[in-house]
Amino acid sequence: MHIRPATRDDASAIWAIIGPTIRAGETYTIEPGIAEEAGIERWLGRDRETFVALDGDQVVGTYYLRPNQQGGGSHVANCGYMTLQAAGGRGIARLMCEHSMVAARRQGFRAMQFNFVVSTNERAVALWRSLGFDIVGRLPGAFRHPALGYVDAFVMFRNL
Amino acid sequence: MHIRPATRDDASAIWAIIGPTIRAGETYTIEPGIAEEAGIERWLGRDRETFVALDGDQVVGTYYLRPNQQGGGSHVANCGYMTLQAAGGRGIARLMCEHSMVAARRQGFRAMQFNFVVSTNERAVALWRSLGFDIVGRLPGAFRHPALGYVDAFVMFRNL
Repeated sequence: MHIRPATRDDASAIWAIIGPTIRAGETYTIEPGIAEEAGIERWLGRDRETFVALDGDQVVGTYYLRPNQQGGGSHVANCGYMTLQAAGGRGIARLMCEHSMVAARRQGFRAMQFNFVVSTNERAVALWRSLGFDIVGRLPGAFRHPALGYVDAFVMFRNL
Repeated sequence: MHIRPATRDDASAIWAIIGPTIRAGETYTIEPGIAEEAGIERWLGRDRETFVALDGDQVVGTYYLRPNQQGGGSHVANCGYMTLQAAGGRGIARLMCEHSMVAARRQGFRAMQFNFVVSTNERAVALWRSLGFDIVGRLPGAFRHPALGYVDAFVMFRNL
């Protein structure tokens, strides 16, 4: 597995990963019907660095790293990670998160925060916990899950 | 006191309110050195509705209302409020918050969330509490206060 900064040439490979997850609407607060171009534009936004994880030549994961806030909050990083559905269960998200923490420390971030981890995304919650993140907040009914209705979301945080 | 939607003609009156607060850097996660134009652009952003509170002809407060998240999180509103420093202590922030809750309910929002209330901003914390907001999360050391160093920030939430 190799992780490198994403380029515009990765756009279609990135959409192959993020498109199905966005369309499912179960884990990210992105409009499920967002146009492909707008979805890619957002994932590769100018406010962030975006990376891709490769297995050989195939892009199997992608994540972004950015300051979670500006001004007095800019020492806390924020990331989002997505894995190719066909490549699930192989530890790609874990590797990307570890990579992101190294990158964030190198850039001088002192902590990392996930603003909105859907509580029913139990694998993600368990993974972030195992990587040292604590649940520091619970947002009651803050996510409308397409199958489960209104469910809680967690704010997760760890120092770096 | 009268509250109405802001227009571009309010820009300089809005900056007279938000400029000093942004420059002080003690309560909002906006870059303290942000250019006036960029600061106004952000406060009047296309992702939100912005209001002004008037005492007679004078703009004494301003707030914005927007969805806190997209997609499955778009039923939760987010607001930011600022009062003219010379008009502090007159209940303008309380009036604006009450106005925003009515506006948010009317638009179908089910809850309201403040993502980042600096813990040392005790008046704001007490005011939001008195208006029914709970502290649902604590972000350890997430704000670098210009005088106090790293301090906690709160996530506050209430159903509408």
